[in-house]
Amino acid sequence: RYGYFGRVPPEVVKLMFCNISGCLTEGRIFLSVSGEEMVSINTRDTAGIRILQKEGVEVMLLTSSLDPFEKALSQKVSARLGCEVLCVGEQPLDDLETLVKERKLSWKDVAFMGNDEIDVQCLNVAGLSAVPSDAPVLAKNAAKYICTAPGGKGAMREFAEHIRLQKRKAKSQLEQDRIDLTSS
Amino acid sequence: RYGYFGRVPPEVVKLMFCNISGCLTEGRIFLSVSGEEMVSINTRDTAGIRILQKEGVEVMLLTSSLDPFEKALSQKVSARLGCEVLCVGEQPLDDLETLVKERKLSWKDVAFMGNDEIDVQCLNVAGLSAVPSDAPVLAKNAAKYICTAPGGKGAMREFAEHIRLQKRKAKSQLEQDRIDLTSS
Amino acid sequence: RYGYFGRVPPEVVKLMFCNISGCLTEGRIFLSVSGEEMVSINTRDTAGIRILQKEGVEVMLLTSSLDPFEKALSQKVSARLGCEVLCVGEQPLDDLETLVKERKLSWKDVAFMGNDEIDVQCLNVAGLSAVPSDAPVLAKNAAKYICTAPGGKGAMREFAEHIRLQKRKAKSQLEQDRIDLTSS
Amino acid sequence: RYGYFGRVPPEVVKLMFCNISGCLTEGRIFLSVSGEEMVSINTRDTAGIRILQKEGVEVMLLTSSLDPFEKALSQKVSARLGCEVLCVGEQPLDDLETLVKERKLSWKDVAFMGNDEIDVQCLNVAGLSAVPSDAPVLAKNAAKYICTAPGGKGAMREFAEHIRLQKRKAKSQLEQDRIDLTSS
Repeated sequence: RYGYFGRVPPEVVKLMFCNISGCLTEGRIFLSVSGEEMVSINTRDTAGIRILQKEGVEVMLLTSSLDPFEKALSQKVSARLGCEVLCVGEQPLDDLETLVKERKLSWKDVAFMGNDEIDVQCLNVAGLSAVPSDAPVLAKNAAKYICTAPGGKGAMREFAEHIRLQKRKAKSQLEQDRIDLTSS
Repeated sequence: RYGYFGRVPPEVVKLMFCNISGCLTEGRIFLSVSGEEMVSINTRDTAGIRILQKEGVEVMLLTSSLDPFEKALSQKVSARLGCEVLCVGEQPLDDLETLVKERKLSWKDVAFMGNDEIDVQCLNVAGLSAVPSDAPVLAKNAAKYICTAPGGKGAMREFAEHIRLQKRKAKSQLEQDRIDLTSS
Repeated sequence: RYGYFGRVPPEVVKLMFCNISGCLTEGRIFLSVSGEEMVSINTRDTAGIRILQKEGVEVMLLTSSLDPFEKALSQKVSARLGCEVLCVGEQPLDDLETLVKERKLSWKDVAFMGNDEIDVQCLNVAGLSAVPSDAPVLAKNAAKYICTAPGGKGAMREFAEHIRLQKRKAKSQLEQDRIDLTSS
Repeated sequence: RYGYFGRVPPEVVKLMFCNISGCLTEGRIFLSVSGEEMVSINTRDTAGIRILQKEGVEVMLLTSSLDPFEKALSQKVSARLGCEVLCVGEQPLDDLETLVKERKLSWKDVAFMGNDEIDVQCLNVAGLSAVPSDAPVLAKNAAKYICTAPGGKGAMREFAEHIRLQKRKAKSQLEQDRIDLTSS
């Protein structure tokens, strides 16, 4: 039999980045005559974030400097979910690299959810990565998991359940390995 | 022939509980820059509630303390539909148990519509229970009826028509049984 | 050959009734914390109404006393489309009968678009009648035409094009009959 | 082999016209009791416009005098996207003709995105033209490209990627032709 050292240790996600626009929202922005701006988020997705937080995953939300998302809006979303919000530039990978290192993590411990060309690099390096079902092909090709739900309509929830499942699998594998070691 | 006493008396729903978020609404919350919050409900669903009220079913709406739904909003929904609103905690079954007993009913006289993991217990015990078509698998497995319409887009209406049909079937069965008894 | 008098004269619609809620709108009502109410209509449908008005059809919009639709809203819709708005009760047929007679029309000259049980009678008597694709079965069974588009998303436009087509067919049939008569 | 002069020079789009209502928006207008009007646009589509602007294409947005789109709204959309907005009449082709000539372009250098009968002429003459998947048949028949996405939900983005691809193909064809010429 192969022993513990012959196997890659299972990936355990400790940090998650998620785009607000297009992942947590549908990507739609409502504009009104009087100057009001509005977006919609889904309770199924906010429940998904709560699932991850319960599993000990730190969730950080991302907005892009390219597609200015009203600051007031992202702060509302952030307050509602108890998550920090980061504004990333044209190279999100560079902005997030520092954060990952600060937490003494490597990218394989990170989950990433994005939905456009700009997210391709992060989708590639993250240990677990996903896009909503309505993401462009380029982003889909880079993601490790493609949700069946579109952005703002359960995609985040689906990915959260996927991560929880991976974490449980990883945990039970560790247990099994310990038993195998003891019994060998 | 088998007589009346050899048969389970048909279930007649007298009380219905229905989640607001995800059942009456689509689960979407609109957030605006100015701090406004908005949800949408459907006239087909409100017509469904009126169908039940006409059939003598008391309809109570539920919100969850976990997913704080703006109090002002649930009161608006409540006023519009002429239904009481209850806020339940992490174990909705415990909160509703008292209410069911107060009305001297048993759970088989109760219809329940939910849409997430938290509702699984209630979906199991209620005489009739349903989830919208877009509920997570866990909730679907516990429900006795899965709507073809998603939440906030006719699911409640569909369940109301299902309940009305069951009530009519139960009534006609009672009639039939009475006729059978008389004629035997 | 059969002559003109052996044929039913073609139906020519001169008046159209259309439910606002569920036909022109999706049936959704947006409720906000601050007390605002909102509905959405579609430019394709408003273009449909304009098509009918150009063809000389008077279009009247209906709201129901059972499902109080904000008066301010129906007036906005009415002003935008240049149509009168009527509020009908539990028996829309009775309310509209008078109007049809006043205009010295019979129901076969009337087109009707509805979307629920309450509209069944009118759907039955109108010369042309339609429901959106998302109407309940009961209403669908009574309609002469079932749109492929749902309410608030092009159903009215589809019906308008259907009516225009019927009018043109009727006109060309009249022409043909005249030619047949002359040449016989 | 056939030389350069035996081939039609590839079309290179330099100017694009795009309807706001029904192409950039879903065609829905939200009306509120208090008099507010609202539309929604999609970040995927705004990213599409940015793609074109990067490729050196001038993007102009169109509104119609027939379907009065709130001026305040179109100015908001225009400001957000850095595009000029034009209001066209019943014959959009006439209004745009002058603009095309002013820029010393011919219609084959122009891309056009429309979504209704009124746009048929422009869809016919433009070098590249597209309609969203939910456009009426008449408009679809006139368009050179039919998007798989509906209006306001990625149609503009899809067309932008299509144009970019055409531009790249044209460019690489020019290169190839130059190589062929040199090596012949």
